[in-house]
Amino acid sequence: MGSGTAARINGWLMIPDPFANALFARPGWDSVTIDCQHGMFDESAAVHTLHALQSAKPRRLVRVPSNEPGFIGKMLDAGADGIIAPMINSVAEATSLAQACWYSPKGSRSFGPTLAALRSTGLPYEEAAATIEVWAMIETRTAFAAVADIAAVPGITGLFVGPSDLALAFGLRPGPDREETEMIDAYLAIISAARAAGKDCAIYCARPAYALRMAGLGFDMVTAATDATALPAAATAAIAAMREG
Amino acid sequence: MGSGTAARINGWLMIPDPFANALFARPGWDSVTIDCQHGMFDESAAVHTLHALQSAKPRRLVRVPSNEPGFIGKMLDAGADGIIAPMINSVAEATSLAQACWYSPKGSRSFGPTLAALRSTGLPYEEAAATIEVWAMIETRTAFAAVADIAAVPGITGLFVGPSDLALAFGLRPGPDREETEMIDAYLAIISAARAAGKDCAIYCARPAYALRMAGLGFDMVTAATDATALPAAATAAIAAMREG
Amino acid sequence: MGSGTAARINGWLMIPDPFANALFARPGWDSVTIDCQHGMFDESAAVHTLHALQSAKPRRLVRVPSNEPGFIGKMLDAGADGIIAPMINSVAEATSLAQACWYSPKGSRSFGPTLAALRSTGLPYEEAAATIEVWAMIETRTAFAAVADIAAVPGITGLFVGPSDLALAFGLRPGPDREETEMIDAYLAIISAARAAGKDCAIYCARPAYALRMAGLGFDMVTAATDATALPAAATAAIAAMREG
Amino acid sequence: MGSGTAARINGWLMIPDPFANALFARPGWDSVTIDCQHGMFDESAAVHTLHALQSAKPRRLVRVPSNEPGFIGKMLDAGADGIIAPMINSVAEATSLAQACWYSPKGSRSFGPTLAALRSTGLPYEEAAATIEVWAMIETRTAFAAVADIAAVPGITGLFVGPSDLALAFGLRPGPDREETEMIDAYLAIISAARAAGKDCAIYCARPAYALRMAGLGFDMVTAATDATALPAAATAAIAAMREG
Amino acid sequence: MGSGTAARINGWLMIPDPFANALFARPGWDSVTIDCQHGMFDESAAVHTLHALQSAKPRRLVRVPSNEPGFIGKMLDAGADGIIAPMINSVAEATSLAQACWYSPKGSRSFGPTLAALRSTGLPYEEAAATIEVWAMIETRTAFAAVADIAAVPGITGLFVGPSDLALAFGLRPGPDREETEMIDAYLAIISAARAAGKDCAIYCARPAYALRMAGLGFDMVTAATDATALPAAATAAIAAMREG
Amino acid sequence: MGSGTAARINGWLMIPDPFANALFARPGWDSVTIDCQHGMFDESAAVHTLHALQSAKPRRLVRVPSNEPGFIGKMLDAGADGIIAPMINSVAEATSLAQACWYSPKGSRSFGPTLAALRSTGLPYEEAAATIEVWAMIETRTAFAAVADIAAVPGITGLFVGPSDLALAFGLRPGPDREETEMIDAYLAIISAARAAGKDCAIYCARPAYALRMAGLGFDMVTAATDATALPAAATAAIAAMREG
Repeated sequence: MGSGTAARINGWLMIPDPFANALFARPGWDSVTIDCQHGMFDESAAVHTLHALQSAKPRRLVRVPSNEPGFIGKMLDAGADGIIAPMINSVAEATSLAQACWYSPKGSRSFGPTLAALRSTGLPYEEAAATIEVWAMIETRTAFAAVADIAAVPGITGLFVGPSDLALAFGLRPGPDREETEMIDAYLAIISAARAAGKDCAIYCARPAYALRMAGLGFDMVTAATDATALPAAATAAIAAMREG
Repeated sequence: MGSGTAARINGWLMIPDPFANALFARPGWDSVTIDCQHGMFDESAAVHTLHALQSAKPRRLVRVPSNEPGFIGKMLDAGADGIIAPMINSVAEATSLAQACWYSPKGSRSFGPTLAALRSTGLPYEEAAATIEVWAMIETRTAFAAVADIAAVPGITGLFVGPSDLALAFGLRPGPDREETEMIDAYLAIISAARAAGKDCAIYCARPAYALRMAGLGFDMVTAATDATALPAAATAAIAAMREG
Repeated sequence: MGSGTAARINGWLMIPDPFANALFARPGWDSVTIDCQHGMFDESAAVHTLHALQSAKPRRLVRVPSNEPGFIGKMLDAGADGIIAPMINSVAEATSLAQACWYSPKGSRSFGPTLAALRSTGLPYEEAAATIEVWAMIETRTAFAAVADIAAVPGITGLFVGPSDLALAFGLRPGPDREETEMIDAYLAIISAARAAGKDCAIYCARPAYALRMAGLGFDMVTAATDATALPAAATAAIAAMREG
Repeated sequence: MGSGTAARINGWLMIPDPFANALFARPGWDSVTIDCQHGMFDESAAVHTLHALQSAKPRRLVRVPSNEPGFIGKMLDAGADGIIAPMINSVAEATSLAQACWYSPKGSRSFGPTLAALRSTGLPYEEAAATIEVWAMIETRTAFAAVADIAAVPGITGLFVGPSDLALAFGLRPGPDREETEMIDAYLAIISAARAAGKDCAIYCARPAYALRMAGLGFDMVTAATDATALPAAATAAIAAMREG
Repeated sequence: MGSGTAARINGWLMIPDPFANALFARPGWDSVTIDCQHGMFDESAAVHTLHALQSAKPRRLVRVPSNEPGFIGKMLDAGADGIIAPMINSVAEATSLAQACWYSPKGSRSFGPTLAALRSTGLPYEEAAATIEVWAMIETRTAFAAVADIAAVPGITGLFVGPSDLALAFGLRPGPDREETEMIDAYLAIISAARAAGKDCAIYCARPAYALRMAGLGFDMVTAATDATALPAAATAAIAAMREG
Repeated sequence: MGSGTAARINGWLMIPDPFANALFARPGWDSVTIDCQHGMFDESAAVHTLHALQSAKPRRLVRVPSNEPGFIGKMLDAGADGIIAPMINSVAEATSLAQACWYSPKGSRSFGPTLAALRSTGLPYEEAAATIEVWAMIETRTAFAAVADIAAVPGITGLFVGPSDLALAFGLRPGPDREETEMIDAYLAIISAARAAGKDCAIYCARPAYALRMAGLGFDMVTAATDATALPAAATAAIAAMREG
């Protein structure tokens, strides 16, 4: 990860149902993200899905609704392999995030694994806890201005670009898979900041074609599809096929 | 319905989450079916989805897990526009099904609408209760032998073909979208039985292309896509696009 | 019960939430009924409410969705003080109901109390199991014709009139609190059948004034209010008071 | 709103069940408030109710448990028409609240509507997002001292009086519908502060008669009834009617 | 199984929570039984636990609340390795049970695996469906009288003794781990009937010592502990240790 | 409490199911703690258990996931007798905790009891609200250094030692029931700080024998068993008994 052309491929989960999640997660993603911010997962739904998707592959990341240590701790206790935290705008916020994710002396995560200790990944739990991923989302002008410093915060393992919010911050309409030069330039700057700090860089994409372009741009992990987008697309396509017959 | 070339297009719901159901149900189906037999819906999940999908369109059918009057009543009380009952093998079973679905004097459904009475379909509740659909599934050899009599049972509004179980009954491997002459002949016989009794006929299909063929064969309602199939298909396609890049 | 002018006062629960149920159940009912037929309770919601309302008063009855022994057993295991079963139309159905409710030798209820054994009613569990109530609903023409025989079935402790379904059966529009002579005469006949068999008789009423009349008519237990009716009534009254100001 | 005698009439929801909520919400309120602070709604229950009450009328406000951006975002994503935040004691807290509610450039709300984008209000989603209400609760001495400044914070659309907490702050016993001159004077001062800043002012009331008085006092929105109060009141009245005969 | 001294060791689950179930199920049982009859599992809770305990070991049996094909089908669809059905009193009931559990031509189970098809047991799904266990509970006098015929029903793979209900049927007080000669003789007769038909025989026991005796008696599978018993035992022991200190 | 040799005995709940909680809580604890930090309880599960365990004994404490006033308020509204807050590292954090727990003038808790007002403890609600317990967890080096000042914060009623996190902070491996002199010395120092401020002191222990030692050391409340530990222990013991036979 972080070199070569083979970016990690991530699937995005917004539907809070472990059966739906198993169906979408199994076909071979490197990781899936349980979205507790803009997805419909609450704490309990996320834990049920973490329990149902307990095999070693794919890795299971959780995007948390905000940078709140209590919620982050519960996701890690339940076996999340990593945390994606939105709206990390400063070194202080990135430090708080890292503190919440790592045990002492690296951080101040409270000890009490539940499902994490039961999980069969081939690693004893404490080694597994040493392999988590901590992604700071860069999605505001403030964050963009501080991106080098945020990237350098110990315990942060990567930067994660939120294209909709970053577009809003740049005065553009929200939405994924941007074509504006201004946005692409920003992506390149964020990748550079990550590289300079020896960290990874990731981005949310809506479609595989764009995700491939972003992998080519240098992102180490790209999201290539979302369950909540797949469902209406499939329904629309089937209805069109029927109506047009 | 029942004449002309424009069969009703039905979408199939197996994922017990109202957000996922709203995403899949909105693009323009004539009806959707909440599958409480082989889908993951229990009673409470089906009621939540009936509450969330309360507009007049699409119509919402419920496939019940078995021909049990208590469960059927709760779905109708919660506003289901129709019932699809599996494994209806005899006139007695079809009569029990019809009795459970219609109020006196047509049947013996118990009165006590809950969400049904709150729903805004443009019809007062008691008129809405006079428009429900009652589908008897024909999916065993016993049922196939008795299909003419089952079709004639008052209060049954249509026959619904279950291709996997019918294939199993014929000694074939289970699965939808059959090509065997024996199966197609059976379909035609079931359609004829429905026609003779002045009833509709429907079938579950997995793909739009096959659903179009079945509409051409004479089915009045065809299922053209299923949420639980759409999710792994979308994930597989995205991953393939990424890996093949 | 069964003599004197003081009929038992029962409250009716349709809202599947233990907080709402506690609010409605506390003010002093002799019993409350958790309605799993036309109310929104599924099995799990009924159990949660039985757990939350675990004191000795009021007694907690459960109306089951149908005369199915598995569901009846779970409600009794969870501490229900009695069962109200809909649509009991024959001696055979009444016998099946009674068998499901009583332990051997009186019946064939399976042993395995859960919450029932934990409940603090002042009685040891097995004595409590000897005080349950078993109500057979009389609400069809068939049941009405067989009411004397149904009342005589051992293990049935009372007859319960369902006015809406009985009205439908008589060719009338459904609804509670009937004024038709034909209906009142039917009530009197049902009360007489209960008396002749040494059993109690109960009826669902929507309003206290009508419930008082029914108590005067001879019913031993009358329902006087329903949570699902109270809510829109309170909202309507408040809005009217505000609009009319 | 904000002028004339016709204050907006708001209903209050504490019971976390979408059926109960639909029953209470339908009779004609201008808005209803889903109370996630002192009501029994958690995140998931609030989302279910927002999904079930998806028509344009009444407007659906959410009182959040605290001024936490993650929770606020999820309620807006799920289609809340407005947020009522408790214990807003300073310009900084009011600013944080407003930031969490509005998209850039007005605030820093993160983009990712779920149910909000599916809702049929007649408005495209982004216009709907421009019509939300942001209410800051004034209910401590600190807030009362800073009320003019809080009212002036851009993005705050109104002040909302919490009478119980304000009474506690003034050394009085808690409870709604206050008669003390000191309280009424405080209300008038808060209304004046709102007026001076061109904002609305609202108050929680327990009974319609008092709500009418408050509308007369100048409040733009008044709460006139609460589901959790209606239930025991209805039960108590029915039991009294029965016992007193 | 069925010969030798090494009976299968089964653990019993009554607590409807997948975390609790994982904790109790992992230490090395041959199988665990999810008790939907006297345990607190409803359909949805059983499915969640089947999803969470998806590895090949231990096998997961489900005791259903009654011999109802709809519920049985949903448990098998969700990946249950076997069904234990209570109160099987006749060849007709045993035949109905077997029909519900096996696909055509052996039975009439409806095809539509959900979690079962996703499960990683090393076997393709259709082979897994050929290895299920179908246990008929013998727990009434009627069943005991018909035990040889019930054992001989094709598709029934074993007889399962319910000691509490059988004791009740014999006029004894309910409870597990019986010492009466009459009961032990009955157990031997049931084991003989199973042997004669080439089937297995199992029994519920409350304590390991008694389970060992029953294994010695000839039972092929014995239950040795129950989660709902373990919890109060552990609490009682800890409190006693503290109070006696 | 706080003098004599009879420390309070506390049981620990991690399994989010009210039936399991009732089984474990009934045998005679002085108090039980619902663990929302490292246990599997989310807000809704904690409320359900508080509703189910509503008798006066045992007292019910809630360990919250973090020092967040909104969550604390909901637990107190639902009838918690006390709050245990993790990671209280400073006077400011302890003050925030106390403010969230007490009504004015002692703090700024918002008024709106729900289940708390319905509970039958023999005390009117407002008196009950004056008897709550507020425990600050001491489990970092920072907290340890500030322990005397934290203990002195008004409204904090006790210090609660988290041994795993404190061990991590001291560079040791995590886990309960420590033997290191360094840890025991720290415990004595924390007890002294509590004593000096006139406050209580408590500790989490995994086994009764160690809990007795800690009571002897001077702790006023000791945890002696945990449900999530009891389950695998019981299963392991039963399996071993069977395998070793």
